[in-house]
Amino acid sequence: MSQPPRPRRKGAKPWAGRFRERIHPAVERFTASVHFDRRLAPYDIQGSLAHARMLAKCGVLTRREAEAILGGLRAIQREVERGTFPWDPALEDVHMNIEARLVRKIGPVGGKLHTARSRNDQVALDLRLYLREQIQVLRRQLRDFQDVLLTAARAHQEVILPGYTHLQRAQPVLLAHHLLAYFEMFQRDRERLAGCLERVNVLPLGAGALAGTTFPIDPHFVAELLGFPRIAANSLDAVADRDFAAEFLACAALVMMHCSRLGEELVLWASAEFGFVALPDALATGSSMMPQKKNPDVAELARGKAGRVYGALVGLLTVLKGLPMSYNRDLQEDKEGLFDAADTTQTTLVALTALLTGIRFQPDRMRAAAAGGYLNATDAADYLAAKRLPFRQAHELVGRLVRHCVDRGCPIEALTLEELREFSPLFDRDVFEYLAVEACVARRASPGGTGPAAVRRALQDAARRLKAEW
Amino acid sequence: MSQPPRPRRKGAKPWAGRFRERIHPAVERFTASVHFDRRLAPYDIQGSLAHARMLAKCGVLTRREAEAILGGLRAIQREVERGTFPWDPALEDVHMNIEARLVRKIGPVGGKLHTARSRNDQVALDLRLYLREQIQVLRRQLRDFQDVLLTAARAHQEVILPGYTHLQRAQPVLLAHHLLAYFEMFQRDRERLAGCLERVNVLPLGAGALAGTTFPIDPHFVAELLGFPRIAANSLDAVADRDFAAEFLACAALVMMHCSRLGEELVLWASAEFGFVALPDALATGSSMMPQKKNPDVAELARGKAGRVYGALVGLLTVLKGLPMSYNRDLQEDKEGLFDAADTTQTTLVALTALLTGIRFQPDRMRAAAAGGYLNATDAADYLAAKRLPFRQAHELVGRLVRHCVDRGCPIEALTLEELREFSPLFDRDVFEYLAVEACVARRASPGGTGPAAVRRALQDAARRLKAEW
Amino acid sequence: MSQPPRPRRKGAKPWAGRFRERIHPAVERFTASVHFDRRLAPYDIQGSLAHARMLAKCGVLTRREAEAILGGLRAIQREVERGTFPWDPALEDVHMNIEARLVRKIGPVGGKLHTARSRNDQVALDLRLYLREQIQVLRRQLRDFQDVLLTAARAHQEVILPGYTHLQRAQPVLLAHHLLAYFEMFQRDRERLAGCLERVNVLPLGAGALAGTTFPIDPHFVAELLGFPRIAANSLDAVADRDFAAEFLACAALVMMHCSRLGEELVLWASAEFGFVALPDALATGSSMMPQKKNPDVAELARGKAGRVYGALVGLLTVLKGLPMSYNRDLQEDKEGLFDAADTTQTTLVALTALLTGIRFQPDRMRAAAAGGYLNATDAADYLAAKRLPFRQAHELVGRLVRHCVDRGCPIEALTLEELREFSPLFDRDVFEYLAVEACVARRASPGGTGPAAVRRALQDAARRLKAEW
Amino acid sequence: MSQPPRPRRKGAKPWAGRFRERIHPAVERFTASVHFDRRLAPYDIQGSLAHARMLAKCGVLTRREAEAILGGLRAIQREVERGTFPWDPALEDVHMNIEARLVRKIGPVGGKLHTARSRNDQVALDLRLYLREQIQVLRRQLRDFQDVLLTAARAHQEVILPGYTHLQRAQPVLLAHHLLAYFEMFQRDRERLAGCLERVNVLPLGAGALAGTTFPIDPHFVAELLGFPRIAANSLDAVADRDFAAEFLACAALVMMHCSRLGEELVLWASAEFGFVALPDALATGSSMMPQKKNPDVAELARGKAGRVYGALVGLLTVLKGLPMSYNRDLQEDKEGLFDAADTTQTTLVALTALLTGIRFQPDRMRAAAAGGYLNATDAADYLAAKRLPFRQAHELVGRLVRHCVDRGCPIEALTLEELREFSPLFDRDVFEYLAVEACVARRASPGGTGPAAVRRALQDAARRLKAEW
Repeated sequence: MSQPPRPRRKGAKPWAGRFRERIHPAVERFTASVHFDRRLAPYDIQGSLAHARMLAKCGVLTRREAEAILGGLRAIQREVERGTFPWDPALEDVHMNIEARLVRKIGPVGGKLHTARSRNDQVALDLRLYLREQIQVLRRQLRDFQDVLLTAARAHQEVILPGYTHLQRAQPVLLAHHLLAYFEMFQRDRERLAGCLERVNVLPLGAGALAGTTFPIDPHFVAELLGFPRIAANSLDAVADRDFAAEFLACAALVMMHCSRLGEELVLWASAEFGFVALPDALATGSSMMPQKKNPDVAELARGKAGRVYGALVGLLTVLKGLPMSYNRDLQEDKEGLFDAADTTQTTLVALTALLTGIRFQPDRMRAAAAGGYLNATDAADYLAAKRLPFRQAHELVGRLVRHCVDRGCPIEALTLEELREFSPLFDRDVFEYLAVEACVARRASPGGTGPAAVRRALQDAARRLKAEW
Repeated sequence: MSQPPRPRRKGAKPWAGRFRERIHPAVERFTASVHFDRRLAPYDIQGSLAHARMLAKCGVLTRREAEAILGGLRAIQREVERGTFPWDPALEDVHMNIEARLVRKIGPVGGKLHTARSRNDQVALDLRLYLREQIQVLRRQLRDFQDVLLTAARAHQEVILPGYTHLQRAQPVLLAHHLLAYFEMFQRDRERLAGCLERVNVLPLGAGALAGTTFPIDPHFVAELLGFPRIAANSLDAVADRDFAAEFLACAALVMMHCSRLGEELVLWASAEFGFVALPDALATGSSMMPQKKNPDVAELARGKAGRVYGALVGLLTVLKGLPMSYNRDLQEDKEGLFDAADTTQTTLVALTALLTGIRFQPDRMRAAAAGGYLNATDAADYLAAKRLPFRQAHELVGRLVRHCVDRGCPIEALTLEELREFSPLFDRDVFEYLAVEACVARRASPGGTGPAAVRRALQDAARRLKAEW
Repeated sequence: MSQPPRPRRKGAKPWAGRFRERIHPAVERFTASVHFDRRLAPYDIQGSLAHARMLAKCGVLTRREAEAILGGLRAIQREVERGTFPWDPALEDVHMNIEARLVRKIGPVGGKLHTARSRNDQVALDLRLYLREQIQVLRRQLRDFQDVLLTAARAHQEVILPGYTHLQRAQPVLLAHHLLAYFEMFQRDRERLAGCLERVNVLPLGAGALAGTTFPIDPHFVAELLGFPRIAANSLDAVADRDFAAEFLACAALVMMHCSRLGEELVLWASAEFGFVALPDALATGSSMMPQKKNPDVAELARGKAGRVYGALVGLLTVLKGLPMSYNRDLQEDKEGLFDAADTTQTTLVALTALLTGIRFQPDRMRAAAAGGYLNATDAADYLAAKRLPFRQAHELVGRLVRHCVDRGCPIEALTLEELREFSPLFDRDVFEYLAVEACVARRASPGGTGPAAVRRALQDAARRLKAEW
Repeated sequence: MSQPPRPRRKGAKPWAGRFRERIHPAVERFTASVHFDRRLAPYDIQGSLAHARMLAKCGVLTRREAEAILGGLRAIQREVERGTFPWDPALEDVHMNIEARLVRKIGPVGGKLHTARSRNDQVALDLRLYLREQIQVLRRQLRDFQDVLLTAARAHQEVILPGYTHLQRAQPVLLAHHLLAYFEMFQRDRERLAGCLERVNVLPLGAGALAGTTFPIDPHFVAELLGFPRIAANSLDAVADRDFAAEFLACAALVMMHCSRLGEELVLWASAEFGFVALPDALATGSSMMPQKKNPDVAELARGKAGRVYGALVGLLTVLKGLPMSYNRDLQEDKEGLFDAADTTQTTLVALTALLTGIRFQPDRMRAAAAGGYLNATDAADYLAAKRLPFRQAHELVGRLVRHCVDRGCPIEALTLEELREFSPLFDRDVFEYLAVEACVARRASPGGTGPAAVRRALQDAARRLKAEW
């Protein structure tokens, strides 16, 4: 025989009907998520506002009911913003906290908000709203950082430093050209995030727990209110899908990979050995033991923090591996790594933007380094190849020439013409001008090359792209 | 004093000029890559053909030189296709093998092919050509697999099975609906690969070793010949960038994650306990010890092989972490994981396509399962909510009702109306028709839901999308 | 000309001497760690107490100085325990917070605590003390969980269920035997953690910033006070090494992998299709939409949480990849993942212990499942092999026999002896007794097998091992 | 009605009895493993030899049968060693290839070898035998490499270079001390592998497919023959367990992480900027474009190859995540990553051993670098602290002193005593001797420090440990 309806106890679960025992404390602690998913509160409320308006439009709620609910939600919104919302861990998650609060504020009618909705589609919506915003923030920060890179590049169009392969000096390049390499990386990051956003921007609400809802809802109206261009095509997929989160983490991992590459370079450049940059005091930290130290901590952390974002990606991919349809509780594990990855990527970009804004490049040290290391050896070979010596032969000949100079401890251009001609009669008087570092740089005029004209065009093109896409 | 030019020894390195000693055997073995990068040979030749034509167009090669080179390359192409190409590990990599062969075939003029090019931009080109083709193959295979899913869905529009959350029976759904969930996942995979392709499809040639080239080349002409819509904007980035490979691996990881989810479901469904599918002999394997076994190995391997693709992604991200500009030898580590991930993803899709084509769904077992497990409990609550009982109260009431039925060991619909009314006077005679499994399915008519009409529309929509995008 | 010494401002960095500007707020936020490393406070104080006592013993501190410092540290310890310690984010990290507090409490003499020590060796010490404790907690929890597994195994020595390979029913096994498989996994985990502990248990203090210290310290005395059997052999390694943390994460990843395997099985077993376990209300959760649901959330989360620990492992391995000697700021990234992995592993074990304590196995469902699926087919082949038919032939023959039975829809033992003899004249009357499920189980009497006698010995052995190692 | 026994077709599966159709070609290709698991052939035969001897001892095989089998296996062993074994992909895997070959050689009695064994326990055995050997090889190589490090350290006991933190010059250290830091890392690797070996060294044979065997076997005898100290305690675990492989991969990942750190340092040291090492020609490679280049490819690849081993670890952890008991086909995915990781780790160590043997350290460049960068600033503070100025105040004072010197562009020791005294009256005449680089090094005499005496003791201790453990 059934029992009479009981009033809900404080902290009673929304699914208490079928259950006779209270939940085991260890299980409650283990399954609770409100300590981290409360961060989704603004998005949860945003989604509920749209859901309630739709329910009213479709006649599932009366106008009066809807108004009560909307009013209650807005009051809760303010509590959340002000930090006065009374979070209760016993209420499991953000959704139940907000719903319980709503019922407390406006009475049992609050319970009608959950009509035609399940936590399964609700949390998918919250997460998509959250991620959409993070992507927008991140793209803006990427753009700001590209802007700083571009400004720095423009300011250093004359500065020459060694370009490296294998961390060996290879050929001279313009500092502007070097900085623009990073511009390109972050440009690709923005493109990738734009693609990701398309797949984030899909409304899952209406999927219910897994199979759709029996109520005559209008998901297109909700989509319009929330600015989603598309609605989910399949309800099972809608509640089981976390591809969008994994794709975001992959995008974030690539952003951080780029930051780690830049970080490594800045650490190198700030070393006494390179000395290509000086750190203003405000952007460095010291040592508690060694009084002389000025450490490039921002660059180091930008490099190291790639790890945690890689880890978050692996974490979510692991969670999703082998999960059957549709919603499984494992999916709760999608959030913390995602939050951390979004935060990490953003704070890293902000810190790197500050760093690149304040850093002081050291053109003299760069120029001096470009003068050593036989950076014009390729040009010496090109010189001979231009006189129709097959390139492979020219390369080998110059290789021997360099070895000769290394033994003598002098640059190529310190040899006399006669000495050069012992290696090849193709060498002529014009070779000395040809081998000047500036000439070497200037000569790489191919599109995308480091020649000043090519770099000028690249700067204009970069500025244009930066403007066009915003 | 310089030595007279020596003839190149067999197996001499292309950079032997500067070096006095022969390479240490352990170093030669450790750095060699021809045992795996020879797979790039067709792409290497394809790129070289375009490069040679461009050099001729720009006057860097004479017409006669270019013709000799093109002829030699085509002869090599045939050797590679026929498997008669004499690979030599001492020649380090695929590029040097082909170039040495060219010189042997057409004489020293073959050495001119490398003018205005470095292995750094060359290998980036090869890898992009390779990956472009893999993406196209993969997208076609994904489409074929979606086609098989769609066909199976169309053929099973009437079949009802339990939808699951938490692997607990939740609500009844159509098998067609379930299969379409996977259609959506693989659709997203194709979209993602299309985005990836845009970033793969960029010509790096012209970047030289790192700084561009001094020759008056025309990369746009090469791009046109090779079908690249864009050329690289920055030479340092062009040789240092493997984002496109990492992005591909992330896409492949998601494809495999989907395969692992489907694999898990098929393993479950093929179990004696579920019995939702039967495997034809041709698609199962047996045991060397247990004569009765028919194992779903394809589904298991589809699940397990996600691991190696995840691993390849982690591998490349690790390689790229903290690498300074521009080319570093670490980048050689980009290939094997990439090759394996492309192969794995493709063979998995082919095997799953065969499996889904031959598998025999068991509608009776599915239908029987859908009849148990109180799958209509949500509808019972909806029934009450439709009579304006706040959903939360309806939910709790039905919860108690289910508990009552569990104790009695009967489904809800086996209770009499009087018994139901002891729980709520809102129950009426129409409740029995309302709670029939078919009615429950039909009622989820919301867009994306499992209602037959919604699924019919989804099938049409899926067919349209599949056609439109090819 | 130098400036006169200034009094330290509130919040001034411990390295302010060499710096003219205040730190940039974005850099301060980005590099701060006190919001997470304050968790190390108890260990930091523990280490400082020992360090101070050693400094006094060695005459670096006077007795009076040491007493002031020890008193101050103990007062701080109480503040930390009571939660009244005034954490200041401007003081960067846990070490500086505590030191600044010490100076505030006991005056400038507090500054002497840092003599012969750097934050580099200090944080390595703190982390090792922390991890040592976590390992001890974890090993105890593993033991408790093994105890519960053992108790459950003892209580179900008669229960037979199908053993599975490929999730296909394979051969009948005892439930006790199945549970002991997990006992073994967690036993290995404890062994691995014991090995890890040896490498955690090494004193890094005395390494200073990187090169050792100039003060006449006695690290062996500190090691004795703190219970470290070994001191670090090399100062550079001592501050650069995080192997012990990575090794711990690898151990934790394996623990969680085991939990994920058990989680998967419990999810399967709790499904309607298997029905091998029933969850008490207190250990399950419900659905906000579907009133009938009782979900095995603990098992699902135990499965899913493997992801975050795998992620933490990848994160730290990534951080360490390619880091030059000695301390780099990247190492700050060692902590959060480690804390989270330790917490996750511990809470998962606690929750699984509660789950396994309360779960109700369903022997009837298990036994019924063991009766289907031709679990005795191997025994039928063994029967023939025992009569000296080569096993391969016996296997093939029984394969055909099973196919015959599948077509007829009956178990092997339902055939008559005449029918069996059509397959092989070796079959005799005793075959029916031979093929009974209990007989099949009993026959696997090999050491480690599922035969009751073997399992009884295994239970005794497990109990003995559990007792011996504590 | 059953069919008469058919003769086995060539290529027929060992489980063909129950099956009516031939396997689908796509499935056959997808599930085949012989192209990679043939590498296990020597171990498979080794295991089979022991198994056959045990079967004979226990009376399961007659003496005559056993002799035929042992003879056949030895003949196959020779075929495998000589590369003449006729591998057949249609026979799925290494086990079936060898068994089919055995039957072809000695007739149907060969089929009796598989008595009391399944491929499930057989492959676990093969993998353990393989891995045991790899661990032994790897430990030997680690030892050889430590030996080279030790020799280099002994040869450079006088050489001083800057020790770095944050890649900023920090304090002077001995090169010997620096090299010994790596000695310690690889020492830990050997310890970890020793622990891993204990868990590899467990006999799984006897577990059968999953439940033990019905034959009166003697696994202890097999264990003795194969040199296993332990036998598996639980048959389900024995066939489902790949912990030992995952643990090995974790150990290998740490070895490679150490190699990547060393690789990074050697790349830095070989740069023009550092110039701390010179590469002999035999250990470097050149550029196909830039004639002057001498690249540290071995060091770069040692750094980069960490990626693939990390990837293999993630791959296997992913495979194992959420796998239910007992054997699942997913486990086939354990091998390729394991093989590759073992090969990679071994070839990397061999290459690094060659590199470190031939590399030429540049003491002058190191010494010159140690003279710059205020490496004695800590000592200046220690000097003051020794005069009982609280260390924090000494640190700040010296910080200002360094800033003053940076502005003047001179080292601390270039100031006059009067100038120094403007900063603190505690400075005295002895300060100049105190601040000499050699004095700074010598002063770090604490155990594990860089002081010459401490390093001498460390060298002796290292030599002793290296000898003791072999």
